[in-house]
Amino acid sequence: MSAADLAAVLLAGHFRYDFDDPRSPANDRLIFSKGHASPLVYGLFRAAGALSEEEFGTYRQFGSRLEGHPTPVLPWVDVATGSLGQGLPIGVGMAIAGKRLDRLPFRVWVICGDSEMAEGSMWEAAEHAAFYELDNLTAIIDVNRLGQRGETMHGWDLSSYSDRLRAFGWHAIEVDGHDVDEIDAAYREAESTTGKPTAIVAKTVKGKGYSAIEDQGGWHGKAVAEEAVAALGGIRNVEIDVPKPEAGEPHQFDSPGTPEWPRYELGSKVATRKAYGDALAALGGVDPKVVVLDGEVSNSTYAEIFRDAHPDRFFEMYIAEQQLIAAAVGMQVLGWKPFASTFAAFMSRGYDFVRMAAISRATLKLCGSHAGVSIGEDGPSQMALEDLAEFRAINGSTVLYPCDGNQAAKLVRAMADIDGISFLRTTRADTAVVYEADEEFPIGGSKTLRSSDDDAVTIVAAGITLHEALAAADTLAGEGVSARVIDLYSVKPIDAETLQSIRTPIVTVEDHWAEGGIGEAVLSVLAEEEDRQPVRVLAVRELPHSGKPAELLAAAGIDAEHISAAARELVSAGVAV
Amino acid sequence: MSAADLAAVLLAGHFRYDFDDPRSPANDRLIFSKGHASPLVYGLFRAAGALSEEEFGTYRQFGSRLEGHPTPVLPWVDVATGSLGQGLPIGVGMAIAGKRLDRLPFRVWVICGDSEMAEGSMWEAAEHAAFYELDNLTAIIDVNRLGQRGETMHGWDLSSYSDRLRAFGWHAIEVDGHDVDEIDAAYREAESTTGKPTAIVAKTVKGKGYSAIEDQGGWHGKAVAEEAVAALGGIRNVEIDVPKPEAGEPHQFDSPGTPEWPRYELGSKVATRKAYGDALAALGGVDPKVVVLDGEVSNSTYAEIFRDAHPDRFFEMYIAEQQLIAAAVGMQVLGWKPFASTFAAFMSRGYDFVRMAAISRATLKLCGSHAGVSIGEDGPSQMALEDLAEFRAINGSTVLYPCDGNQAAKLVRAMADIDGISFLRTTRADTAVVYEADEEFPIGGSKTLRSSDDDAVTIVAAGITLHEALAAADTLAGEGVSARVIDLYSVKPIDAETLQSIRTPIVTVEDHWAEGGIGEAVLSVLAEEEDRQPVRVLAVRELPHSGKPAELLAAAGIDAEHISAAARELVSAGVAV
Repeated sequence: MSAADLAAVLLAGHFRYDFDDPRSPANDRLIFSKGHASPLVYGLFRAAGALSEEEFGTYRQFGSRLEGHPTPVLPWVDVATGSLGQGLPIGVGMAIAGKRLDRLPFRVWVICGDSEMAEGSMWEAAEHAAFYELDNLTAIIDVNRLGQRGETMHGWDLSSYSDRLRAFGWHAIEVDGHDVDEIDAAYREAESTTGKPTAIVAKTVKGKGYSAIEDQGGWHGKAVAEEAVAALGGIRNVEIDVPKPEAGEPHQFDSPGTPEWPRYELGSKVATRKAYGDALAALGGVDPKVVVLDGEVSNSTYAEIFRDAHPDRFFEMYIAEQQLIAAAVGMQVLGWKPFASTFAAFMSRGYDFVRMAAISRATLKLCGSHAGVSIGEDGPSQMALEDLAEFRAINGSTVLYPCDGNQAAKLVRAMADIDGISFLRTTRADTAVVYEADEEFPIGGSKTLRSSDDDAVTIVAAGITLHEALAAADTLAGEGVSARVIDLYSVKPIDAETLQSIRTPIVTVEDHWAEGGIGEAVLSVLAEEEDRQPVRVLAVRELPHSGKPAELLAAAGIDAEHISAAARELVSAGVAV
Repeated sequence: MSAADLAAVLLAGHFRYDFDDPRSPANDRLIFSKGHASPLVYGLFRAAGALSEEEFGTYRQFGSRLEGHPTPVLPWVDVATGSLGQGLPIGVGMAIAGKRLDRLPFRVWVICGDSEMAEGSMWEAAEHAAFYELDNLTAIIDVNRLGQRGETMHGWDLSSYSDRLRAFGWHAIEVDGHDVDEIDAAYREAESTTGKPTAIVAKTVKGKGYSAIEDQGGWHGKAVAEEAVAALGGIRNVEIDVPKPEAGEPHQFDSPGTPEWPRYELGSKVATRKAYGDALAALGGVDPKVVVLDGEVSNSTYAEIFRDAHPDRFFEMYIAEQQLIAAAVGMQVLGWKPFASTFAAFMSRGYDFVRMAAISRATLKLCGSHAGVSIGEDGPSQMALEDLAEFRAINGSTVLYPCDGNQAAKLVRAMADIDGISFLRTTRADTAVVYEADEEFPIGGSKTLRSSDDDAVTIVAAGITLHEALAAADTLAGEGVSARVIDLYSVKPIDAETLQSIRTPIVTVEDHWAEGGIGEAVLSVLAEEEDRQPVRVLAVRELPHSGKPAELLAAAGIDAEHISAAARELVSAGVAV
């Protein structure tokens, strides 16, 4: 209710949108960063004639498209909100796309709550919006003074918001959020401001129009519909005639034609992170929709190779991982194919954004480098050991973990066409090329690198440990023990068929915590198998320190020596039985 | 090298610290938020006489305490850094403790990089430091212009930092970071500023003193030790005489004596989140070290019950989950026992802070409410479905998931004494009390609620699904099928002994994604068992929508009906074999 006047004036005179063609590239975009204002969102859609009265009555019911917080099951909702502080950074991504990719005059409007200004992600957005000079972005801050459980830090002190935003490089306008003329003038000022984003900081009254709850705490998220409707004068079926945008087509980047896909020689050494950069640059050459964002570590993730090849489609997001993910979410709404990369450990900084991106039905391609203890001397703060667990636990995700350059390159190519959220885990160290450049690696598949009819044990590995597994198999072969080696490069979806066909004891080995990683993924697909074999899960179980990669793999019990020891134990136990 | 003058002046004249008694409550605290400056950190410890020359030479070697980024394996390092943007919010927690809990005059000094000012968490810290009037906190911002891969957004524009910080309510001083007199004067000004935190924004030169690399990109994190030492005049064994603090003892809060532990009647209904609040308030009465922080949802998590009982030990952290976790990390350094709560879904916002807290060997008690689809109408943005995976994948963590009020209360009591990071998952809905108030729930244990000699199937559940499991067991009993029901309230550590003793097929059921949760935890402890039974994992596998809790449990396939159907299938398959 506090934002109703702000929203109504916006839709009636400023927001340009074709409700019959929500995917039109010319449309303005509107995000309710304060997703708990869902009744207002749906009310606007109703007023614009997009929702029937019948459907409008299904709010929060099972099977309804009108969920408790807006989600893209409604075609006019671009992204899910409801985790506060996400709408504005996503809007930054859309506005960057508008200016630098689509090159269309659409505007991005984000209605923000005052409570959510306490989220750091809002200030990452503020910083990036000013840095990228996003004069096509307007933040409307609904300062209703009250959060969920009481007053915000700043109450109705509008200047606390406008001063901060001005210091961050924004144009800021303070208005009475229930004075339609003031609001209208502010929107016009926003539309005519160039070179910087505009914030409209609006003093509003929570529960406005329903005196029984106006400006009172204790009503956040509480249903007051019937009484409120009566107080506001009954059901009125207000109609808003939302103006449509002028037609426009997004800018098309050239694709130079024949791509030069990276090819690495069998037996040479290359880091999978380097192959990510090489493949990304090649992909950019064939797919003009591919864009890349990086979190100020492009010389480590090797996203810099893409930057140098396609500077117009590369975006430096600095050390702001929440904004990194959010910008990618915003760009994919406009049909771009964003790859976003940083150290895999720092993906944890943006995890809530990844979680929400899945609810947004977003298609993101994420790459985390420097996985596991094998990074060596930099120590545990830089070692991703929970990223497989994180990304496996994202709805509909794809989790890929290449062991060599050719495989990494092929998986990057495949990611371009994967729907939903895909994650590529790369390794810091140079690793041996074990696959030919023409080998194919279907998503959901695996590769059996060693096998014979008399396999006594199977080793399942991926990434850096695949090389340890091969070395262990060599050692075991020298002892007369035949070990099958499976490369589980597709951690999710997983090659259940191959794993379920194993008839030997299994050793899984991963440079990751034991929880939620490769071992548990393997156990999951074997859970109901009739002929279940014992599975020994080798994984990192103690906090690692600094050291050389080989020292750390050994200390964690995931090197070739520990793999062969585990295999020997399982084989002799099996013989004993 | 850029921060060396800033640090040397600090230690020589302002920082008060007893290197022989690093845990002294009177000590100032120093955090290198820019953890990659570890050579400087160790150099200072060497100069202060705390490190031997021999140990100083072990930097980044396997087994050395001198890790690539500082960690508390060194007694003079309070918290691990190396994930940028964490030191300042942790310092805010220490400074709040100094003013409001310890009530001692120690100061908190945080040396920040300029690159990390792009992290939203730094602005959460800026906001909270001003709000809590932390004049005992000084941020020293080392503006060396260069990030890892190039220039920062603001280069050497000091005012971009000082203007922003002033707008956030800080006192800000710009200095030449290599002019020791200016630096000294700024520290004195910080010490005499009252009512607000001070930021010293220092223009510095990266690689200062070694002309071959001064102010050049491409050297971030690169070893230049030998040449640099020579350029700086060779090994000099500088000694700094760090002044010790005046003795002081922390404030002691009263504990009123006999606690009134909550007791709920068997068969009554109470939400585990409510029991969390009740138990926390009681705990506050017996343990004066317990403090509580909440992320502006205390009326939902029920932390408000503690707030009302012990207002001096409750801290509102507003909607800023990174700062919420970071403040708890800072407070536990000073010996306080912080409980921090928000919706479990929003713990994902602070996940990198939890990850780093484990590397800091921090002891935190976290509570996430509103877990799973069972929250109902608010929809998927508010439903934690990945929190068990997240917290299981934290080194040394304890993960607890109570099903009733008495169990929740006992687990809250137990959490007070758990080392490391413990997480309690609570449920929105009222659930039946199934345990007597005097029942004990050891960490690492489980409860077998139904069992007989002729059990044909075992159902493993926790939290909301435990009630569904009991209902399923009743249904099955009516059909002549005896089902054992195990309450796995301690998800980690897990009761391996009980689970490994099961000799029937198993159904696990959880209000969580299939990945990384209870099902996989159970599979892990059964992985190597000789007499492996089939395990059917019932978990959430499709993106949920809004609806009533019962509708959503059914839609996810985790209600009583689906449990009994799964049990029937496993039992008949077993008979067929």
